[in-house]
Amino acid sequence: MGAATLGATLSCALPLGPGDRIQLGHGSGGKLSAALLKHCFLPHLGNPTLAQLGDGAVVSVEAGEIVVSTDSFVVSPLVFPGGDIGSLAVHGSLNDLAMMGAEPRWLTAGFIIEEGLLLAELTRIVQSMGDAARAAGVPVITGDTKVVERGKGDGLFINTTGIGVRYSRARPAPDRARPGDAVLVSGPIGRHGMAIMAARGSLGFEGALESDSACLWPMVRGLVDLLGEELHVLRDPTRGGVASALNEIAAASGVGVVLQDGLLPIPEAVNAACEMLGLDPLYVANEGMFVAFCPHALAAEALRTLRAHPLGEQAAVVGRVVADHPGFVVLETALGTQRVVDLLPGDQLPRIC
Amino acid sequence: MGAATLGATLSCALPLGPGDRIQLGHGSGGKLSAALLKHCFLPHLGNPTLAQLGDGAVVSVEAGEIVVSTDSFVVSPLVFPGGDIGSLAVHGSLNDLAMMGAEPRWLTAGFIIEEGLLLAELTRIVQSMGDAARAAGVPVITGDTKVVERGKGDGLFINTTGIGVRYSRARPAPDRARPGDAVLVSGPIGRHGMAIMAARGSLGFEGALESDSACLWPMVRGLVDLLGEELHVLRDPTRGGVASALNEIAAASGVGVVLQDGLLPIPEAVNAACEMLGLDPLYVANEGMFVAFCPHALAAEALRTLRAHPLGEQAAVVGRVVADHPGFVVLETALGTQRVVDLLPGDQLPRIC
Repeated sequence: MGAATLGATLSCALPLGPGDRIQLGHGSGGKLSAALLKHCFLPHLGNPTLAQLGDGAVVSVEAGEIVVSTDSFVVSPLVFPGGDIGSLAVHGSLNDLAMMGAEPRWLTAGFIIEEGLLLAELTRIVQSMGDAARAAGVPVITGDTKVVERGKGDGLFINTTGIGVRYSRARPAPDRARPGDAVLVSGPIGRHGMAIMAARGSLGFEGALESDSACLWPMVRGLVDLLGEELHVLRDPTRGGVASALNEIAAASGVGVVLQDGLLPIPEAVNAACEMLGLDPLYVANEGMFVAFCPHALAAEALRTLRAHPLGEQAAVVGRVVADHPGFVVLETALGTQRVVDLLPGDQLPRIC
Repeated sequence: MGAATLGATLSCALPLGPGDRIQLGHGSGGKLSAALLKHCFLPHLGNPTLAQLGDGAVVSVEAGEIVVSTDSFVVSPLVFPGGDIGSLAVHGSLNDLAMMGAEPRWLTAGFIIEEGLLLAELTRIVQSMGDAARAAGVPVITGDTKVVERGKGDGLFINTTGIGVRYSRARPAPDRARPGDAVLVSGPIGRHGMAIMAARGSLGFEGALESDSACLWPMVRGLVDLLGEELHVLRDPTRGGVASALNEIAAASGVGVVLQDGLLPIPEAVNAACEMLGLDPLYVANEGMFVAFCPHALAAEALRTLRAHPLGEQAAVVGRVVADHPGFVVLETALGTQRVVDLLPGDQLPRIC
């Protein structure tokens, strides 16, 4: 009869009206929490494991190595061209696993909701999260919801933890770059960050700017299949952009990186928006492309593999690894001049992910 | 030289002065982020896996079942008698694993920090988190830090995801309560919630109220060793307290639960504080005790096992499972009167964990 009572309560409290908002009680672990779970979360994230609603989830693993990655998402605004905080939270953690050469298997989700958030907005974001997880074939197996008072949060923060398994012998790592490696990018640079800036109204236009937020694993898997252990480095250049990612790799591997300006696939709209704001596209966050390092002799075939994937049509070899200037990334222009691409001290664009 | 440059920057930016505060740039993924990681997080949370600082962490598992649990912590205030958000975030996720009969192995940590938080306060909390993790023997293997603008957060939110492995054949679950089971509690009721209320100044005194926040696994392991599959249900009654936990179990198992008022170990300070605020201790959150269900014939031995542990000195058999009134929890007084202990609609005490 407890279950019956709960059911009756649920059907009273919901379905939701268009103006219903999150109350503190939705985070209580009581009847309102149960209603939120039943009407907002389970319909979109539901799967047999999540539906058990225990203190956690149980999944079977083979013996071997598992890979774990966690990320909190605080992007503002919550919805932007090309995605929202829900799809971004899925792609972000899955991509971190992919960058370690791991096949993503499971996701957890923790929601910190500000009192007053429209239930309809939350539901749309959860639906988008569920769509992204389903498209990637990775279920959300357990989750948690907390509510904070109005003014103590900012609509919605989402933490996701991704768990994956090693896919093959590939062991890409930031310290495995070697002189002679080619530096590849899998797609256009700077789209996510500039789409967020456009959505914030910072540009006075949105236009052609759309986030690249996407699950990278299918494209990465192709590269892993091709290159195996010769895939030296993989990195998704999110916060801090391509420049920061390459600086970290150069430092970790004790090598120099030379980028060739003319080869960088930077969309015209990103260039224009960056010029308006005085930003450098190399420091702008990406959420659907990666940099890869492999021996130069394998670069052409790697490029063909990337370009065969819809997300990789603009993949390019953009530079090379050298023994000179270890720890430094240098940009070479068509005129042969060079400038150092340094690590930024702080944020160019806060709350981009 | 990138590494050298980074090192130089770190020693410039830090060690921290007593008045230093978190800036947005600490969440950028740039030099300030690196400095924060090096001077605040790694000294206290560091271990060989975390120190690799990849996009995620790699750990080895045996073939079998892993258990995963995630929780976001938004407790206010950040520090309270008996703990803080850091130790609570460790205990909370580890206890969720323990409640599923899993041995905790690894933790992840995601920090959402409000601009302006004192670095010294953050560091104290991270240290407390590290101490709790070390005491439990469970390393934090990967993490993430985000910073939000002043007024868009509330000091600090922490998400932890715990990963454990099944410890034995024990399969405690909320739907396995059976008529004839005894209901045990492992320790005193209501301490965490009332310690938080005291820390908020709601009582006008703090006095004897201290949170029970603790890692339950060592005590649970003893019970699992003793009872095996006869350990039917385990639950840590956090948000919503003992009443909500028992209601969920009664509903999931389709049984009735009868509690005996006189047997409940409720500290005098908790009773007094609850009376002042018009609260019922049965609905107050706990973070260092659990309820367990096992066949009545095994209850005495189970009780001895619990009491042999320092956290279990006040363990007690507090009730029984009946076939009557399925889904309902009933409290029986010494006079023989009964009242229904229902599920609350919303929060008694928001942001208790």
